Amino acid sequence: VARISSAIDIDGLSDRLAAGDIQTCAKLITRIEDGDPAMRGLLARLYLSTGRPKVVGFTGPPGVGKSTTIDALTMEFRKRGERVAVLAIDPSSPKTGGAVLGDRVRLARHSEDSGVYIRSMATRGSVGGLALAAADVLVLLGSMPFDVIFLESVGVGQNEIDISWHADPVVVMQTAHSGDVIQTSKAGVLEIGDIFAVNKADDPRTAKMTNALQEMIGRTYSHAESGGWRPPVIETQAVSGLGISDLLGAIDSRFSFLGEHPLELIRRERAQLIGRLRATLIEHVDRSFRSIEQSIDRKLHDVVARKVDPYALADSIRIRIETI
Amino acid sequence: VARISSAIDIDGLSDRLAAGDIQTCAKLITRIEDGDPAMRGLLARLYLSTGRPKVVGFTGPPGVGKSTTIDALTMEFRKRGERVAVLAIDPSSPKTGGAVLGDRVRLARHSEDSGVYIRSMATRGSVGGLALAAADVLVLLGSMPFDVIFLESVGVGQNEIDISWHADPVVVMQTAHSGDVIQTSKAGVLEIGDIFAVNKADDPRTAKMTNALQEMIGRTYSHAESGGWRPPVIETQAVSGLGISDLLGAIDSRFSFLGEHPLELIRRERAQLIGRLRATLIEHVDRSFRSIEQSIDRKLHDVVARKVDPYALADSIRIRIETI
Repeated sequence: VARISSAIDIDGLSDRLAAGDIQTCAKLITRIEDGDPAMRGLLARLYLSTGRPKVVGFTGPPGVGKSTTIDALTMEFRKRGERVAVLAIDPSSPKTGGAVLGDRVRLARHSEDSGVYIRSMATRGSVGGLALAAADVLVLLGSMPFDVIFLESVGVGQNEIDISWHADPVVVMQTAHSGDVIQTSKAGVLEIGDIFAVNKADDPRTAKMTNALQEMIGRTYSHAESGGWRPPVIETQAVSGLGISDLLGAIDSRFSFLGEHPLELIRRERAQLIGRLRATLIEHVDRSFRSIEQSIDRKLHDVVARKVDPYALADSIRIRIETI
Repeated sequence: VARISSAIDIDGLSDRLAAGDIQTCAKLITRIEDGDPAMRGLLARLYLSTGRPKVVGFTGPPGVGKSTTIDALTMEFRKRGERVAVLAIDPSSPKTGGAVLGDRVRLARHSEDSGVYIRSMATRGSVGGLALAAADVLVLLGSMPFDVIFLESVGVGQNEIDISWHADPVVVMQTAHSGDVIQTSKAGVLEIGDIFAVNKADDPRTAKMTNALQEMIGRTYSHAESGGWRPPVIETQAVSGLGISDLLGAIDSRFSFLGEHPLELIRRERAQLIGRLRATLIEHVDRSFRSIEQSIDRKLHDVVARKVDPYALADSIRIRIETI
């Protein structure tokens, strides 16, 4: 793999990104994935010099139809002449070097279209590390001439990226057959969804699911916390394109809303920064933790042997956080 | 709600728990959920004076049949005269005070049987906090005359407890229709499963799912990392009881295996302690973070305004971890 030399030309790279140079972009993403510290200066510059990118996040259980929906939306944006980047982050798939299998399938569909860029990121380390790298890649993509960035979170369970600190709107996808309605209410997704899509709407239980979601949104909706945005529930059937224009309309509405409600935009962006900062701190804890694991080896042994209790073990580790 | 007074009688409570006093147990669990610091002395004592409890964890997507499977297994253990505790932890459901709705349904089924204790825990604070409280409740239940504890993780996505640092074996449940096989391989559950159950085995795609799982286990299996335990894949249909005896057999085998491989038992218990310790540290970060949020308010504002970059913001927070 050809590598850009370690000393980076921030001005030159910024210019190439601003001009939409995909090859430069792809190489820089690889360096971000590799944790190259030389990227920081460039990313700081790009962050300061470019505005907030339009990032639409998609989350939902496996098989719900995220990729198909994103593909259908991509077509709609392309029809309007807008340029689209798709970033799929998969914390549960180990990085195998280069693009993930799915990329090739998806790229093939848009291979003739230079207005679409698709990229996957998989984990080489921790979920938190990948989430931070994804935030960096969004800064990078945000400096390029894309009109919208679709962010797809592929993981499940433990291995899921908290997409709400990367994107606005967050589209939470469900199907009527992905567990019953009561379980949906438990999913903890109500808080993060700006738009809900009930996909595979040919399922006869769809209307019931839609009503249940609307009812739950009504119950938890708070004008003060949302700035007045009440998440719509859209029924879609991505494979046939049904409902995709409604979903597109909801996304457009959200962007208009954010434009008209700067305070809400700022509130969300602050929340996103806090999420990112927390991830940075936890990454740091994990790194430090690995280094102290050796020094607590003896104590771990004693706890397993029931000579020391785990509360005493926890007390023997001191953690301090301060602002400077 | 009647409360035990704050000064606790460790000897008396230990004795009552050892005698199987359910009312004492229930009250103490509530105090653990409330984060009562008075519990620590009791829990430390119970940890040191009782052995490692037999905890079987169940994880899998919503609707996969975890509760039904646990119910069916409970019947089997009861037939052998063994006493069963079931702890369901649901990080995505807010605690409403007292038992969660599902408890009552499930309790009703075993209400005549004093050999079964069922309890749910829901979140009042963070997922990490609930996970730590669940670890404490397992210490409590482990000091009582239960022969086995079933731990059910109910959350999805972000809101899921990492059950692998609470239980051994971990039963990872799937169905043939919970997303296709490729997505299963991405699920990041292969590493944590000691036993796999493919439930709703009347689905014609079950054999395909079972084969795919077995093939993937074969590919990732490492004698060195597992001590020689190769996770079995069991097909079940919990509603009809089909395959439940096989699942019971696999659980028994795992317990025998751990009894015969003390080094493997220790390795796992160490890994569990490390998981717990990490959660404690992250809880601490979250608490500290809330307290510094005010002091970084101005900086957050500057980052949103693109006057300061987020990397500089992260650098302004120092975190130190040391063993004492």
